[in-house]
Amino acid sequence: MKVEIWSDFMCPFCYIGKRRFEQALDQFAGKGETEVIFRSFELNPQASNGESGNVHAMLAQKYGMSLEQARASTSDLTQQAAAVGLSFNFDTMVNTNSFDAHRLIYFAEKNSKAAELTELMFKASFTDGTNISSREALAGLAAAAGLDRGQAAQALEQDDFTREVRSDEEEAQRLGIRGVPYFVIDRKYAVSGAQSPEMFLQALNKAWEERKPVITPFSPDGAGSSGGACSVDGDCN
Amino acid sequence: MKVEIWSDFMCPFCYIGKRRFEQALDQFAGKGETEVIFRSFELNPQASNGESGNVHAMLAQKYGMSLEQARASTSDLTQQAAAVGLSFNFDTMVNTNSFDAHRLIYFAEKNSKAAELTELMFKASFTDGTNISSREALAGLAAAAGLDRGQAAQALEQDDFTREVRSDEEEAQRLGIRGVPYFVIDRKYAVSGAQSPEMFLQALNKAWEERKPVITPFSPDGAGSSGGACSVDGDCN
Repeated sequence: MKVEIWSDFMCPFCYIGKRRFEQALDQFAGKGETEVIFRSFELNPQASNGESGNVHAMLAQKYGMSLEQARASTSDLTQQAAAVGLSFNFDTMVNTNSFDAHRLIYFAEKNSKAAELTELMFKASFTDGTNISSREALAGLAAAAGLDRGQAAQALEQDDFTREVRSDEEEAQRLGIRGVPYFVIDRKYAVSGAQSPEMFLQALNKAWEERKPVITPFSPDGAGSSGGACSVDGDCN
Repeated sequence: MKVEIWSDFMCPFCYIGKRRFEQALDQFAGKGETEVIFRSFELNPQASNGESGNVHAMLAQKYGMSLEQARASTSDLTQQAAAVGLSFNFDTMVNTNSFDAHRLIYFAEKNSKAAELTELMFKASFTDGTNISSREALAGLAAAAGLDRGQAAQALEQDDFTREVRSDEEEAQRLGIRGVPYFVIDRKYAVSGAQSPEMFLQALNKAWEERKPVITPFSPDGAGSSGGACSVDGDCN
C-alpha cells in the first residue's frame, strides 16, 4: 500500500501531522507492506532565500499585531507539538523558501535516505532554527542523514530534482490540494490536515481492507454468453 | 487502461479471440489510451520441440477417432476462423512446444515489436504450418517483424526471457486461469474465452467508465473531525 503525504517544511501542522500519522502507522497491521512517500508542496513559493525573517515578526506584520500577540498566537501550536513529543521554537524558526529543501529530499530518495532526511529537515526548521534555504545548512543535514555531503552540495548546485519537485506541485494542483499536510492513501482515500492518530488508523484500515485488486468475471447484460477456449486438459470448445 | 491477454500460439480460440477483441477495440472510444499486452500461457508445456506431429493425427490418437473424423472435428473451428478473416490450415499445422515462441515475444516487447510478432506468430502457426518451436523459424519471424535476426537468435540461444514467461504462467496460476484466451481488463474485469466483439466492447466500456482513480475524502465513523492545516493563503489553523 502507498501513502503519499504532500507537505512543506514551513508548515507546523505538517510536522505535527507526521508524528500523528506515525503513531497510527505503528498500530497498523499493514505497516510492513506500506510505503510512505513525502511529496513536495511550497506554501509560499515566493519566499526569498536567506534569512527571510522570524516567524513572529512575519505574523505581526501580516496580521497587524504586536510581537507579543504574535508569540501568543503560536503558543497553541507549540503545545500541540509538545503533546506529540516535538519541541517547536517559533522564536528562532526561520521563515524561508523551501524549494531547495524539497529538491534535497529527492536526492535523498535516490539514495534511500528520504525518510531520515525528511525528519531531520523538519527538526532543523521547527526545533533548531536552521535556515533550510542555506545550501551550506542543507549539505550538513544531508551528511547527518548519512548522505555524501559533496554529492548533495553538487546536486543542489546543479539544480537537480527540480523536475520532481515541480511534478509533485503540479499533481497537488490537479488533485485540488490547497493546504497541507494532505495524505493520499493508495490513491483512494484522502485525509486533509493533521488529524488524530485514531482517524489516520481508521483510514489506513479501510484502505487496507479494500486493497486487494479483485478481478471480477465480466458478465454482460442478459447473461453469460460463452466464448470458445482451450483448457490445460487439452480440450478446445 | 491496460488489457492483458493470456494466450498460447497452439490455441485456435486465442487467434480467433484476438481478432474478435481487435474488432471491439476498433470501436472502443478509449482505444488510444489502451495498452494491450499478451501474456504467456502454455496449454501443453510437456510438448516436445521439433516436429511434434500434425494436429489431426494428435486428435485421432487422443480421442480414438479416424483421421477423417479428426478433420471433421476441426472444420467448425476453421469456419469460425474464416468468419473473422483468418485462414486456418489444421492439415499442415504443427502441434509443438511454444515456450521459445513466448520468450521471443518478450524479446520483441523489449524492442517495441511485440504486437507485430504476436500476429506473425499466430499466422505462422495456424495459417502457414510453421513449426514455431524451430529456432531457425523463430529467427525468421523475428526478422519479418522488423527485429534484428542475429540478436533474436542470440536471445533464444541464451535462454533470455525465461523468467518473464514463467512469471506470466505463475500469475495465470495465481489468478486461477485454467484455459485461454483469458482477458483481464485493468485488473478489474476478466473475460474468459473468445467472446463476441460486442461482449468485449461492453467489458471495455464498463472498465473505461470506472477507470478514473477517484480519491475520496476519508470520513471516519461519526463525522468530520478537523485536523489543523496550513493553506496556500498562508494561514495555519
